[in-house]
Amino acid sequence: MEPSFDIVKAGHIEFLVTDLNEARKFYVDTLGFVVTEADKSHIYLRGLEDRHHHCLTLTQSDSPGVGHFAFRVATEGGLKAIEKLAKSMGFYTRWVEAGQERGQGRALLMEDKFGFPVEFYSKMAGVEWMLQKFQNYRGGKVMRLDHFNVMLPDAASAFEWYVDSLGFKCTELTETEGRKPDLWAAWLRRKQTCHDIALTTGKGPRVHHAGFTVADRGSIMDVADLLASAGYLESMERGPGRHGVSNAFFLYLRDPVGNRIELYTGDYISADPDWVPIHWKLNDPQRQTFWGALTPASWFNDAMEVRSPKTGKFARLSAPKIKDRPDYLLSAK
Amino acid sequence: MEPSFDIVKAGHIEFLVTDLNEARKFYVDTLGFVVTEADKSHIYLRGLEDRHHHCLTLTQSDSPGVGHFAFRVATEGGLKAIEKLAKSMGFYTRWVEAGQERGQGRALLMEDKFGFPVEFYSKMAGVEWMLQKFQNYRGGKVMRLDHFNVMLPDAASAFEWYVDSLGFKCTELTETEGRKPDLWAAWLRRKQTCHDIALTTGKGPRVHHAGFTVADRGSIMDVADLLASAGYLESMERGPGRHGVSNAFFLYLRDPVGNRIELYTGDYISADPDWVPIHWKLNDPQRQTFWGALTPASWFNDAMEVRSPKTGKFARLSAPKIKDRPDYLLSAK
Amino acid sequence: MEPSFDIVKAGHIEFLVTDLNEARKFYVDTLGFVVTEADKSHIYLRGLEDRHHHCLTLTQSDSPGVGHFAFRVATEGGLKAIEKLAKSMGFYTRWVEAGQERGQGRALLMEDKFGFPVEFYSKMAGVEWMLQKFQNYRGGKVMRLDHFNVMLPDAASAFEWYVDSLGFKCTELTETEGRKPDLWAAWLRRKQTCHDIALTTGKGPRVHHAGFTVADRGSIMDVADLLASAGYLESMERGPGRHGVSNAFFLYLRDPVGNRIELYTGDYISADPDWVPIHWKLNDPQRQTFWGALTPASWFNDAMEVRSPKTGKFARLSAPKIKDRPDYLLSAK
Amino acid sequence: MEPSFDIVKAGHIEFLVTDLNEARKFYVDTLGFVVTEADKSHIYLRGLEDRHHHCLTLTQSDSPGVGHFAFRVATEGGLKAIEKLAKSMGFYTRWVEAGQERGQGRALLMEDKFGFPVEFYSKMAGVEWMLQKFQNYRGGKVMRLDHFNVMLPDAASAFEWYVDSLGFKCTELTETEGRKPDLWAAWLRRKQTCHDIALTTGKGPRVHHAGFTVADRGSIMDVADLLASAGYLESMERGPGRHGVSNAFFLYLRDPVGNRIELYTGDYISADPDWVPIHWKLNDPQRQTFWGALTPASWFNDAMEVRSPKTGKFARLSAPKIKDRPDYLLSAK
Repeated sequence: MEPSFDIVKAGHIEFLVTDLNEARKFYVDTLGFVVTEADKSHIYLRGLEDRHHHCLTLTQSDSPGVGHFAFRVATEGGLKAIEKLAKSMGFYTRWVEAGQERGQGRALLMEDKFGFPVEFYSKMAGVEWMLQKFQNYRGGKVMRLDHFNVMLPDAASAFEWYVDSLGFKCTELTETEGRKPDLWAAWLRRKQTCHDIALTTGKGPRVHHAGFTVADRGSIMDVADLLASAGYLESMERGPGRHGVSNAFFLYLRDPVGNRIELYTGDYISADPDWVPIHWKLNDPQRQTFWGALTPASWFNDAMEVRSPKTGKFARLSAPKIKDRPDYLLSAK
Repeated sequence: MEPSFDIVKAGHIEFLVTDLNEARKFYVDTLGFVVTEADKSHIYLRGLEDRHHHCLTLTQSDSPGVGHFAFRVATEGGLKAIEKLAKSMGFYTRWVEAGQERGQGRALLMEDKFGFPVEFYSKMAGVEWMLQKFQNYRGGKVMRLDHFNVMLPDAASAFEWYVDSLGFKCTELTETEGRKPDLWAAWLRRKQTCHDIALTTGKGPRVHHAGFTVADRGSIMDVADLLASAGYLESMERGPGRHGVSNAFFLYLRDPVGNRIELYTGDYISADPDWVPIHWKLNDPQRQTFWGALTPASWFNDAMEVRSPKTGKFARLSAPKIKDRPDYLLSAK
Repeated sequence: MEPSFDIVKAGHIEFLVTDLNEARKFYVDTLGFVVTEADKSHIYLRGLEDRHHHCLTLTQSDSPGVGHFAFRVATEGGLKAIEKLAKSMGFYTRWVEAGQERGQGRALLMEDKFGFPVEFYSKMAGVEWMLQKFQNYRGGKVMRLDHFNVMLPDAASAFEWYVDSLGFKCTELTETEGRKPDLWAAWLRRKQTCHDIALTTGKGPRVHHAGFTVADRGSIMDVADLLASAGYLESMERGPGRHGVSNAFFLYLRDPVGNRIELYTGDYISADPDWVPIHWKLNDPQRQTFWGALTPASWFNDAMEVRSPKTGKFARLSAPKIKDRPDYLLSAK
Repeated sequence: MEPSFDIVKAGHIEFLVTDLNEARKFYVDTLGFVVTEADKSHIYLRGLEDRHHHCLTLTQSDSPGVGHFAFRVATEGGLKAIEKLAKSMGFYTRWVEAGQERGQGRALLMEDKFGFPVEFYSKMAGVEWMLQKFQNYRGGKVMRLDHFNVMLPDAASAFEWYVDSLGFKCTELTETEGRKPDLWAAWLRRKQTCHDIALTTGKGPRVHHAGFTVADRGSIMDVADLLASAGYLESMERGPGRHGVSNAFFLYLRDPVGNRIELYTGDYISADPDWVPIHWKLNDPQRQTFWGALTPASWFNDAMEVRSPKTGKFARLSAPKIKDRPDYLLSAK
């Protein structure tokens, strides 16, 4: 049955950057994120479709990585219920007071059992809707945050936490080859799209990427042209292409310090309560890129380290429990 | 608070057609709806994204119009709760037994206080997902049913029923001009898009159109080319264009007997629980077509009559309580 | 046989505007034309694909209209041959010295027998190619000038001049209805597209519009959104749509003083020497808009007056010899 | 000065296939080429924009490869002038009688000094224009043949032949790195697009691919989806992407026997007589794919062998005179 936490959606993510000006050039001047607010050490960004304060925070830091990622919860009661659950699990938690993160109400920050810095918040300040201010559209026509993709040693265990405890639903999943397949990756959702969070087997805890929805596949082609001519050739790591999983068009980008985002568009609406998860095999050549293109090795090897809410340092990494990895990687020669 | 009926989404609609072969040519051979099943007097159709039996039924009949439209409900318990409410309101209701409508479980059919034939169902047979069978894509790349748009004399009263009693949320609304504006139209949602049902002031009860989502705005251009060259020039009533309300691209079509559908793409995700409805004024020239194009008078005057579940005859029509209509209509001279 | 004038293509046009700043906001800041050069009374503009100085000149003037339009000729010898022909026909001609029009070599300006101010030039300064400077793309992604569309009392006579004397070829034409059809309009080309100039029956001499190629049909949708949100709602006179003639996507715009341009994309390559003109009937509802949309009366009635090279005043207008006009016009009511 | 041969454009190409049924499934049923005529051993195909009999002939054969490729010439006189030139050069030539190749008038077939089987023809039967028969559009929306890309040991020598003797013009070229660069590849045109033939350094004589124009970049995405779902995953060798050279969007396909075509769209109009060739360096990572994607080694190594008009056997291959090849190839690991 539907859990009572009322988690709404993937809400926002904090990227650590070592040069806020360079980051602004990339995210604002080139990709076209909208600046809601900024101070010496933060830029709060939103998409054209967003009606709330931010979905991406850039924070000046000594190293790249992820400060935290956050889910929106419908009610204050939901936050408290999540706190109770987290404490019962023995997780480190603390309250982030209203306004401490600009535009945001009181929020619960935790370090979950996998080592991820996850925040839950309910209130966020409303802002002007830019959706029909087409005269201000720039670059990639970024609409909104869509999802987080995280990499961790034990995807099956995280699946349990998100699905059984937090009430996420599974839309698609990937299993290892062989007669006794293991869960290798899963796409889970609270809002009615393909996913709010994807869990992938790998060295972790790390965040593989944050996915942002763009207007349409034409926008993805346009942003590829733009990046290629604006000096960001190295930023384009993979794509454009169509995913098998999710059916979306994609382009993966590395920002100037190596943080990774996905520009993403064209998945489906998953409103039906009896949704049967789509199953994929790990080595299906169309799973990751429906057109069969190989994937750069860096895309599998690299991910963003995460800062521990408890220690303030980057979380210690562990090797994956399952050794299997796709066989369709490529390398330059 | 969230009501307990667990209405999921606009589920399907039954169009009455006088020539099933002509209807098949239009919906299947030209627009590319997928046939799930057919018999002598019905064709059950679905979109490429659908994983359930049908979202549009064509029924052989003496006159065009709408047999019923239906909302999907998450649980059987929800159906019973809705029945109880409907009876308490004095509405005519009856149970449609499982299989009576192909592929569908037991369903509650009612004639609501506005005279609309509305069905609520919970179970529907699963079918093959065509989303990645691109080799079978045809015509308009119709993905799924998105919404119903109904016309009735008293939109404010229907707003109360859908929002206060059934638990729909309002995403956008239109008010009359002047200092004491009346509600003239409302866009209401259960699934997390712009709407599942729109209520418009006009002679009614009638169904103005059923909106079907297509892949992207290119698909709308392509289908216009296709219809224009396939002998369906008269079918294109309005568009292509972009709506102010919903921000979607649209093309309105009349089928060979005059039933109206909208091909629709590019609205937004409305997952946030604190969504503040967008307000529009009736005569804002960008409300209906963001680019300012005038609207054919037929688009305002014509709509589909609905068959009474009680009498089996078309519902009697009443004049709208509010006389105001937009001032941006056009006519040929 | 191929004439020896070696006319290459529609080269540039001069629009008279009463407020150069307002014109710059429209053409440069909004539509994204590239400024090559400007002085107090002129702005010289080019498209992203252009490798020469300008294709559109905005000239400060007391009234809107067209100063002149110009064809590029391959060689200096071609210019002299055209001068000889024009003199033999008794046309007013004069040489515009190199640099008098910025970036342009010596040019022949004439007032042709229909009253049009037509320039022929051979040399124009080369400029930076912006085609792959995607970071500078703005607004409508205007690529280059494609064609002129002129309106005059006697299209058949102009057809003779352009085809028989100047060596243009006819790609498509429109005839009046009835058993003895008259030529009502013609699309003529030198470069290998649908046309460099279109001749239309109407009060004239006037220039109906200048057509500029944009990147693709998506650009046309984008620019409609942009204009609608940037305060140029009134500028969108007709479209977007697909033409029957030329098969191109179009959007007709009026600039702040009423001069008309067409954004245009997707016609064909007409390289074959044995091209058989496509024939259209005047009242074919798909001729102008393949999707059958009606045309605003203003689109037929309004056109830009032209300045006489001889007198410096606007040319006197005469009524069309053929009274027929399309029956698919529309008006608001 | 302009030569007198009046070569118009790349006209058609003959692909040798070992299974005509399999070839039909690929080119007609999947990609959507239009069948003009067929017999036991040939299928004559055209694009949607073509107004002449064929641009691609599939010929039943024992091995894949290219039978011949052909340029259209404006006049019969041009054919004779080319024959005279070829004989003066000592090339093997013979006349192909009218009708011997279906739909084609008398044609001159030669084996040029590089070993290529090149045909020149002037007359070809007219056929129905499918451009506005949108109801018949299928698959890739192939519009017309655009160009041939050939690979040969000495590109500089072929450049001389095509430019100095036959009157082609150079739009773009690639040079080797270093202080004394050699010509490595050239894009040459007769019609007013980027090219009719490209010359590339490599083992030859071989035809690397034939390029066919499609409607727009959306068509290229659509055809990738289609091929991926219709069992032609292996056919997609490279792309989709944007070229640096030509600025076009592309997707390279191998047919079921390995012949290669390019789907291509979005280059420019090159009408200006003073066009200055665009220069590229061999190892510029944006030269081949503007977005920087690596190129599969097969794309450089494989090409189609050509049948000698003189012997009827495949031409003997020679190693390239210049050893340089791009350094941005990739391989799977």
